[in-house]
Formats: sequence, C-alpha cells, structure tokens
Amino acid sequence: MDNRVILTPLKRIFNPKGDIYHVMKSSDIGYRGFGEAYFTTINKNEIKGWKKHNRMTLNLVVIVGRVKFVIYDEITRKFSTVILSPTNYQRLTVNPQLYLAFKGLKENNIILNIANLQHDPYEVENLDILKINYEW
Amino acid sequence: MDNRVILTPLKRIFNPKGDIYHVMKSSDIGYRGFGEAYFTTINKNEIKGWKKHNRMTLNLVVIVGRVKFVIYDEITRKFSTVILSPTNYQRLTVNPQLYLAFKGLKENNIILNIANLQHDPYEVENLDILKINYEW
Repeated sequence: MDNRVILTPLKRIFNPKGDIYHVMKSSDIGYRGFGEAYFTTINKNEIKGWKKHNRMTLNLVVIVGRVKFVIYDEITRKFSTVILSPTNYQRLTVNPQLYLAFKGLKENNIILNIANLQHDPYEVENLDILKINYEW
Repeated sequence: MDNRVILTPLKRIFNPKGDIYHVMKSSDIGYRGFGEAYFTTINKNEIKGWKKHNRMTLNLVVIVGRVKFVIYDEITRKFSTVILSPTNYQRLTVNPQLYLAFKGLKENNIILNIANLQHDPYEVENLDILKINYEW
C-alpha cells in the first residue's frame, strides 16, 4: 500500500448477546482529530467516486457487507486496493490529496467514516469515474 | 425525557447509489470530545445492561435493526425509553451517572457509540438486569 494509506486490523470482541467491534480511539495511528462521523451506504455493483479531499483524512470501516476501495495517487500514478467487510475487519486511513472510489459487493453495504473535518464541499474535488482508468 | 438525555433527529440524505446518514459533528449538541468510537451489536430479544458510566457521555445511533433503550436515573427514580432504528433515525446522548440497558428487537441490530472517553473498566458500574425493576 501507498505510505499515505494505512490499514489497521481492528478487534472484534465476542459476546454471546452480540459482539463489539472496535473502530477508533483518539490514541490510534491515523487519528487526526474529530470533525464529523457519518455513514455512507453503497448499493450492490454501484461505484461512488472519484473523490479527492484536499484537507480531510478519512478513517473507514465496513460494518455491513463487502466493499472494494480503490485509491489512486496522481503523483506516483499508482493504485492501492483493498476489500473490507466485517470478516476482514480493518480500518482504512486515507490521507488527503488521494483519489478514492469504492464499489458495493453485497446487497447491503455500510461504511462508517470518522473524519478529522466537517463536511465542506469546497475541500472536495469530484472526478467522473471514467476519468481515471481502472478495471473494476 | 430526562434533561441529561438528549434526542437529536439526524439527516438521512438520499443518494441513488446508496444513502448517507449523518451521525455527529464536532459542533453538535451532545458532543463532549472524542475518545473512542465502537459498534456494539445486540441479538434479538437479548438485553445488555444495566451499565452506569461515571464519566463517559455516550452518543448512540442505530444503523441496522431496531433497539429499545431504557435509561434509569437513580436520583429521580425515573425511566426514559426510546426505540431507535434507521427509520426513526436519531442520536441518543446519555450523560454520565445514568443507568442504561438496551434490547435488540430485530434479527440484526447494530449500534454505534461515539464516546468522549476511551473504554476504561474502572469508570463503569455494572448491575444485574434484575436489580432495577423494569417491565421489558
């Protein structure tokens, strides 16, 4: 993976009444402050992206379904990819200045983002999915 | 509701590829700083609780299923109850010094907690579910 993309395995703690899934602590690597938390869902075979944040660091976990994330670094021209799910339960930290797109692989897919900034349309650049050539 | 319990309606933003669900911004009422975020799941008809945090403020949303929350204030001896789900999508802020228990009403129920402190077993008091008399 690109050194501005961090993948952190997370604990899932068994409980007979219902498991606990860690997401993030303020002392964790990748934590850059709290601005906003939100869920984004992605329907099966749909792709959201490309989106480049100029200042926001994303911290992403997949609590339902299975999602393929693709990160494109326009400086090195390299792609990083990872598939996350509650089974492959890891946190994906995406630094600013990288393009991100993601695809839903199951019927229902839910992603949580813990972001260091509040949503601000002026710090995001949107690019049509066809403008960066990736074989989905 | 008790004045130490806040219920905040949250936006769900329609998107044809998959909706967005707000959770919390650092400027929101009920935000007391970021210590840790984690998911807790609760199986159908199971109850987790009672638990009283001495210093932690909880901020709870239900992104999957349907969960009944019951809060007990041992000073006023009053109960507050609310049922949350992705349909009745609100954030439940629970101040410290209140007892909380919750019950799973659907097959799969997923709760996100944005807490102002990292998990610390020494600031939590656990009480057997039968020790506070509530008709579930």
